[in-house]
Parts: sequence; C-alpha cells; structure tokens
Amino acid sequence: MPIHTNIDYALELDQQDTLARFRDEFVIDDPDLIYLDGNSLGRLPKRSIARVREVVEKEWGQRLIRGWGDGWFRAPQRVGSKIAQLIGAAADEVSVSDSTSVNFFKLVVAALQARRRRTRIVTDDLNFPSDLYILQGALKLAGSEYRLEIVRSTDGLTVSNDALAKAIDDRTALVTLSHTAFKSGYVYDMPSVTELAQRAGALMLWDLSHSVGAMPVGLNDAGADLAVGCTYKYVNGGPGAPAFLYVRRDLQESLLNPIWGWFGQKGQFDFELDYRPAPGITRFLAGTPTMLSLAAIEPGVDLLLEAGLDRLRAKSVKQTEYLIGLWEALLQPLGFTLNSPRDANRRGSHVSIGHPDGLRIDRALIEEMNVLPDFRYPDNIRLGIAPIYTSYSEIHEAVVRLCRVMNERLYEKYPTERPEVT
Amino acid sequence: MPIHTNIDYALELDQQDTLARFRDEFVIDDPDLIYLDGNSLGRLPKRSIARVREVVEKEWGQRLIRGWGDGWFRAPQRVGSKIAQLIGAAADEVSVSDSTSVNFFKLVVAALQARRRRTRIVTDDLNFPSDLYILQGALKLAGSEYRLEIVRSTDGLTVSNDALAKAIDDRTALVTLSHTAFKSGYVYDMPSVTELAQRAGALMLWDLSHSVGAMPVGLNDAGADLAVGCTYKYVNGGPGAPAFLYVRRDLQESLLNPIWGWFGQKGQFDFELDYRPAPGITRFLAGTPTMLSLAAIEPGVDLLLEAGLDRLRAKSVKQTEYLIGLWEALLQPLGFTLNSPRDANRRGSHVSIGHPDGLRIDRALIEEMNVLPDFRYPDNIRLGIAPIYTSYSEIHEAVVRLCRVMNERLYEKYPTERPEVT
Repeated sequence: MPIHTNIDYALELDQQDTLARFRDEFVIDDPDLIYLDGNSLGRLPKRSIARVREVVEKEWGQRLIRGWGDGWFRAPQRVGSKIAQLIGAAADEVSVSDSTSVNFFKLVVAALQARRRRTRIVTDDLNFPSDLYILQGALKLAGSEYRLEIVRSTDGLTVSNDALAKAIDDRTALVTLSHTAFKSGYVYDMPSVTELAQRAGALMLWDLSHSVGAMPVGLNDAGADLAVGCTYKYVNGGPGAPAFLYVRRDLQESLLNPIWGWFGQKGQFDFELDYRPAPGITRFLAGTPTMLSLAAIEPGVDLLLEAGLDRLRAKSVKQTEYLIGLWEALLQPLGFTLNSPRDANRRGSHVSIGHPDGLRIDRALIEEMNVLPDFRYPDNIRLGIAPIYTSYSEIHEAVVRLCRVMNERLYEKYPTERPEVT
Repeated sequence: MPIHTNIDYALELDQQDTLARFRDEFVIDDPDLIYLDGNSLGRLPKRSIARVREVVEKEWGQRLIRGWGDGWFRAPQRVGSKIAQLIGAAADEVSVSDSTSVNFFKLVVAALQARRRRTRIVTDDLNFPSDLYILQGALKLAGSEYRLEIVRSTDGLTVSNDALAKAIDDRTALVTLSHTAFKSGYVYDMPSVTELAQRAGALMLWDLSHSVGAMPVGLNDAGADLAVGCTYKYVNGGPGAPAFLYVRRDLQESLLNPIWGWFGQKGQFDFELDYRPAPGITRFLAGTPTMLSLAAIEPGVDLLLEAGLDRLRAKSVKQTEYLIGLWEALLQPLGFTLNSPRDANRRGSHVSIGHPDGLRIDRALIEEMNVLPDFRYPDNIRLGIAPIYTSYSEIHEAVVRLCRVMNERLYEKYPTERPEVT
C-alpha cells in the first residue's frame, strides 16, 4: 500500500473510523499523552469507576455479607460467561478468579494427571516467561522423569508448525503456547496447532493474554482443550484484574484442579470434611474471589462486546499496517528493525521495533515526549494498539515524537542499563 | 460476674469504651441493623472508599502503567509488612497476594518438600473445611503413601494438646491448625502447640483467618514456622480481599513455592527462560496481584494498628463475656446451648450458640429482625463481635430481638432445610 506519512491522512482515517466513539468511554485526562501500552495495562473505562463505587459503597458498605447471596457467589461464572463470548467458548466453559499464573498452574497439573503415562510438555521460547516458570515448577512436582521441551524460534519472531510438529510425539502430555507472543506479536494458527497436539494424543492449552479483546478467538471452532488469559490488557479490567480459565465442556468432569479450595467444592456450605469437586467449570475455582477487582472487569468486557471483535480486529490490522508503513518510511532509515511479523494474519495488536539503543530511546519517549510504549529485553520497544481507544493520529504522533528523539539525540543522556525494580 | 440484662448497663459500657470512636470510622448506613457477621465480612472503613477511588481514578486512570513503578510492584510486601505488626512477625516475613486457599496450598506443598521423608500431615476436625480440602489435594499430588491425620474433637468445641501430641510422631511432616476455630471459636495455645510440632521435627502452619485483627497473635514469640490468613474478616479488607502468608525468615531460602510465577522470580523483568526464586518472602508470590482489592486492605490494617491489638482484645473479651452472660440469663432458658469455650483465654471473638431450630431462627433474625449473624451446620448461630466497631448496646439489642423471635415463634414459618446456593 502507498505510504502516507502526513497527519492529514491519519486524521482522515480517524474520521472514517466507525469505532471512534468508543474512545469517549475511557478516562483520558491528559490529551497530550500517547498511550501505547494497552497491551500491558488497558485504560480505565468510565463505567468501571461507577461499577467499583457500587461494589464498594453499596454492595460491601450497605449489603455487607448479603452481597454474597445477591450475586458475588456466582460472579466468577457470570463474568466468565461474558468472557466466553470474547474467546469463542460456551457460557459454561469459562470462569474468572485468581491470577493467570495460578490458573495456568491448575490446568497444567490437571493435564499432567490426565495424561499420566506421558512425561513431556512442549512449549516454545516465544512464550511468556511466567508460563515457562510455572511449567518448570509443575514438572518438578510431577517427578524427575518429566521434561519440558522448549521449541526455539530461529528468527526470534515466529515458530513454524513444522518445528512444533517435530517436538510433539507420543510422550507429549501437553502442548502449551501463547496464542499471541508477548514480544514479537506473532499469532499462532489455533486450529492447525491444536490439531497437531491432539493428533499425538496430547492436550492443548492456549495462553490468550495478548489476544483476548484484540481479536476474535475461536476456542470451540479450533476444538481447543484448555486456555487461560488475563483481563488487564486489551480487556481493560484494571491492574492485576483476575484472570480467566477455559476448560472444554466434555473435559470438565475428567480433569481435576490440584488446588482443592472451597469455591470448587460441591455443596460449599455443607462444610463436609472431604473434598468433592463441584460439577462443571466451578471445580476449577479455589479460594474466595477478589470481588472489587472482579467487579471492575465487567464494563471492559461489555464495551468489547458492544464494539464487536470482528470490527476491532479489522481496525487493529489497519492500525498495525499503518504503523508498519510509518516505520518503513520514517523509522527504518533511523536504524529501527521491525521485530513483528509482516503478515497481518500472523500478527497481534502490538508492533515491536528494535534498536541497539532501544532501552534509552524508550526512556526518552517516556520522560521527554509523553509517549508510553513498553520495553522488552534486549532491544524491543513494544507499540501496543488497543483498537477500542487508540486513534490513527496518536500512532502518527508517536512516530513523529520518536523521530524527534532520534534526530535530537534526546536518548543519549539516559543510562544504557535498566534500573533494578525494587 | 453478676448478670446485668438491662440496656442501661450496655449503654454504660459503651460510655466507658475508649475504643468507641473507631465505630465512626466505618460506614453504618442503617443504624437499625445489628451486624454480627464481621467474622465473615468486616464492615467498610470510610477511608477505604477514598483509597479505592484513588487507586482506580488516579493510579489506574491517570498514571496507567506507571502505577507499577509508583508503588504497585512492592504493594504485596509493603502491605504485608503492616500486617506483620498484627501477627507478631517481622516486616520482611509477610506478603499479601492470592487467596487464603492458594497461599495455604503453596506453603503445604513447600512443607512436604522440605520434610520429604515424612508422609503425614496432622490437623483437626475443627479446621476450616477449605484447609482440609487443600490438604487432601496436596497429599494426592504428593503420592499414595501420604496421609492426612484428622484429630477429632470429643466435645465438638475444643481439641486438647494431649490429643494432638498422640497424633504427632516422626512421620509427621506438618502440623496445621486454625488458630481460632471457625465454628466454636476455640483458640489454640500457639507456643505450646508449635513446640509439640517442632519437637517431633515437623513444621507448624497456622491459619490465622479468625484471629487476625481480633487479638494479638505472636508468631515470632511462638517460633511458628508458617502462617496464612484472610483479610476480609476482622481486618475489614473487603469481599475476597487478598490473603497474607508468613514464612519465618530463616526458613525462607530453604522453602520453595510450588507455583513458580513471575512475581516470585528473581529479576522479574530480565525475562529469563529459567525460574530462579527471588530472595526472601517475594518468592512466595506467584502471578500479578489484584491491585484494587489489595489497595482496599490497607485502611483496615491502619485502623487496627491505631486502636491497638491489646485494647481490641480486652474489649473483645469483655464483649464476649457480656454476651455469654446474656445467654446464661436469657437464652439458655429458651433452649440455646453455648457452643463456644467458657474460658475467655481459649475463646476468639465470636460466640456460637446452638439450637435444634437454629437454621430457621437464623433466617428469622435476618428477615424479621434486621440482625445479621451467620449460620454454620448443623445448628450453630455465630454471633461475631468486631471490637473495633461492635457496641455493647448492639449485643444487647441482638439478644432482645432473638428473644422476640423465640417468644413470638417468628421462626416457624421458615423451612427447616437450607436453600441451595446456586
């Protein structure tokens, strides 16, 4: 496509954008800020302010313990049934509670128990490190004969189905991958990869953290077995918002959550001394859900459903294409590499660009330019596009400011080493 | 002590109560409501309304991803260091994140790994069922040679140290008990029980859910190894507020959290592919903490520290004594049994009374009398006293209304079976 680098073109695209009105649904207090980190923490929906006030001041403050009977008890399943619509699952296949890491742990251990004679888990090095750590811990618990097979990406951006296929065999209990890679934004083809795993007799577990809310996900269409995902990125659920898990309906009764908490107990208030797993998706709950954080998720989900995932994906693709066009015209000449796939079908909603001075450039964007991307070692600047609120003119302005950082060498005053997070 | 049943005496006690001003720190929108369920869900501190607004509207809404650097990252440890003051622990021995059940799971599995040749866990049947379920699940993971020994209470209210001692031997990896029993309110003597466990070479894990915030707890004084507890009861942290865990400092480096999430990783943002546990209490974190729910905890902790745990305990003892006096004079004649210990030193901050029609009486209290106790099978009405906001005249009025339910037989219209929670 021809590359348009002037702001008029961006403004024209914003004019044509049928989703533009959704930007007004979010709190934007600093109109100068270019926020390109919705893939780490999504913006605050205005409706969530009202919803959190309601759960704090009315439900907790006034209804007190009666809040549980009023609706809190079933909130994990109720909000889960809405998230199900974002990921192509049935209403009774998803629940919301605990962190992504804890939910991932539950499903990994459950999968290992369900494929007891198989001692291998296959994943890749594009996967989010927390998932790799959880896998290592679960395998250590399972025993010394268990192994993690990490398929290595040859280009750092993608992993081919062929490379996966070579790693999967009749020892494989579980294949687990991030559907959209956190660094490069590479998107796996869910149906064909799921089939690879299942054909070998393994279970398939998808981490949807960087997909959910940014594109339609078709878990049921792909016949996927298991999935987890977070709600604080494109779902705009708030910092550390509880995560969801998905278990295909016909697997629910045969899999066992290893964390036998009372919210997964059949007849929770019978207070029997022995654990009996609840029917359905409820057995994958554990302890008491964090109601304030859980309540904050729902407005974000509602907004995505109102906007429509197909429309959001179409806009996201158009916006990442636009950004890549600007990279080609303006940033490549300044020494930036494109660290995301060119093929829009295999790309999520963020674009990573690399530069040897990436860390310092990222700091300069934040400190000098009021642009918030994020940074992933060793040299990746991630430019996250949340199609529900990101505008074309913001993308344009971010690139303009990035050019200024480079042309005026504004990054040179920043250290080349990242400060320790303490 | 002489039994005073008239309201003047209660009003006099309220007059003398040096903690009475703390009641004004809580939202009390319905002055007619007698809330005796602070042992299930504590009231809303007024300061928490402001704190949650701040974390939603300022920190999330305006600071966005920068909120993590501003303070969210260390919030589990920072709020933990305050809770440490409630439970007699050092600042670096406590963190807040995940549910009580998940934290309990982490520490149970860690303990089993640390005492690998020992195959028994000892607990009792007064323990909260979710703890028993978690134990059963952890033991199933550990292998078929592992066993749970449940010491049975002979009177349904208490378990003697002698009975525990008989169950603990050189096969015992872990002894774990609720410090205050959820049903009877029985309080174990922490130092002597901890010593019983440790003398046999076992680790000791306390569940403090029904103790924390209602009485001083001396984990360090008792030399306790491990503890967990919730923050939504006497800490007034909100529905499903994240739980805390405690690991004695000298054990931290030798124990391994089985859920290897990125918040427990050394150098979390190095994104290495291999898990390396963080130093200290941080390694017992797992996934991203739920920041809205976590922020709501802090004002409740601050209020308890301002009131002082010794003073709160003194008031709590006086209030449960007062309630037991009223039971003796007014409720025992109506057929109620006392299902909590008479010895104040062995009693927590709730009083359970039993009646064959307990379930229906509980319903009538709620529906007809605007009294909120809670009910635990088969026949327990729990009257929870939160000394930071419960008044003597409320306790008096609750008993008056309970007498009315009995004298006017208001409970007879309610079903004898509990409706299913769905």
